[in-house]
Amino acid sequence: MNLILVEESELRPDGTVRIDGRRAHHLAKVLKTKPGDKVRIGCLNGLCGQAELLAWEGGEALLQCELTDPPPARPGIDLLLAVPRPKALKRVLSTAAMLGVDRMILINAARTEKSFFQSAALEPSTVHRLFLEGAEQARDTRLPQLLLRALSPFSRVLQDELDELLGPAALRLLPHPVAPSIHDALELPSGDRRIALAVGPEGGWVPFEVDLLQAHGFCPVSLGPRILRVETAVPYLIGLIAGMKRDLRAAPPLPKMPP
Amino acid sequence: MNLILVEESELRPDGTVRIDGRRAHHLAKVLKTKPGDKVRIGCLNGLCGQAELLAWEGGEALLQCELTDPPPARPGIDLLLAVPRPKALKRVLSTAAMLGVDRMILINAARTEKSFFQSAALEPSTVHRLFLEGAEQARDTRLPQLLLRALSPFSRVLQDELDELLGPAALRLLPHPVAPSIHDALELPSGDRRIALAVGPEGGWVPFEVDLLQAHGFCPVSLGPRILRVETAVPYLIGLIAGMKRDLRAAPPLPKMPP
Repeated sequence: MNLILVEESELRPDGTVRIDGRRAHHLAKVLKTKPGDKVRIGCLNGLCGQAELLAWEGGEALLQCELTDPPPARPGIDLLLAVPRPKALKRVLSTAAMLGVDRMILINAARTEKSFFQSAALEPSTVHRLFLEGAEQARDTRLPQLLLRALSPFSRVLQDELDELLGPAALRLLPHPVAPSIHDALELPSGDRRIALAVGPEGGWVPFEVDLLQAHGFCPVSLGPRILRVETAVPYLIGLIAGMKRDLRAAPPLPKMPP
Repeated sequence: MNLILVEESELRPDGTVRIDGRRAHHLAKVLKTKPGDKVRIGCLNGLCGQAELLAWEGGEALLQCELTDPPPARPGIDLLLAVPRPKALKRVLSTAAMLGVDRMILINAARTEKSFFQSAALEPSTVHRLFLEGAEQARDTRLPQLLLRALSPFSRVLQDELDELLGPAALRLLPHPVAPSIHDALELPSGDRRIALAVGPEGGWVPFEVDLLQAHGFCPVSLGPRILRVETAVPYLIGLIAGMKRDLRAAPPLPKMPP
């Protein structure tokens, strides 16, 4: 936890906040914060800054916040992800928040085991906790948005929702073992385009899905001969794109969330 | 398991091999392999190819191998890694093998918890199993080499061993939050140089360690404002380098292992 995250509703008009539970435990036991000490703080969906510990009152910490700085820039990436096995999903949720992914659209693929849809990792409270963990690690105040589309047909999601969710201008990439190398397929000279990545299930997309993704603008690119697990593929891919862009500045903001 | 890995000593002169245990279980239960079916096979530290299942004999699979292809190219990367917490270490071991890291040198850093050195994750049998899992996933036949230097003083490892282990020509990078952006600091136009990455402990390197790493040729580079967990940082960094190199071909082979 490199950042204590508070919600706007917790902040009082005088800039103080009272926290308990997991966050207070971290202040007390890990950081061993004493009155007068300063810690990094952030307001969910808002600014970051410093907070001074005024006092320990019962198990609660009373903090005086100064929120002055914007959260870290985001890479402008959305993930279209076949629902992975629960253990992998948990890691990907936290990793996606850590790396500043904007949207994760979880879909049903032919090779996705349907039992994964009942996983506790998909409970909103679990998703929120894992997103928080990733954001706290990366000192971010913004969490990804999770769009669970596992119960809709794959083709319906692509046809009806994708342009609105990703924005028509996003560069859509489909990592695929049988495709031109990503370096031959495209140039990413600047940070001015959003990027959507379609990451398939274990065993990969079936040909019908590849065709449909291509018909919806996804460009197949190879990352080389290594087949990566989804929890490794996601950070590797986001790193690869950061490397190709030669620019770690922010991409344009994501299109408005549909209602 | 995208590749069945066998050891050279298991291969008979006629190209057949008899496997049991975990690999046979995978063939039987996951791939549901029947006599006549073909599967991908690789010989540890050797070639890859196909194997035909000749028969199930008891719980054992009798396979006829044709080993014809080289294993996937390697990115030419070595990791100098402060011993992470056991859970993170396990993930990094498997990830490093998956991504074709050549050497992992585990060292003691000021902020490393010394209890980590007693972790079961450091047992040679555990390390080997996790390396195997990563290689089987990535269809690689080569495993990283693990050099455990946690009980030697940090400065001694750098002074006495590093040039020999990494080779004097390797580009040495030190991801560090307070440094020029990696994109401003260097160009990686081709795949012709090996790269060594120094990845610190939770909480980062202390100034003494940063100074010493710099004195030994490590160039501090920033990956941006996000603080990543080691298990996310490693694949992200290796992806970033692949993106910057614009070339996924093999780097030169690693220097000879000291005796």
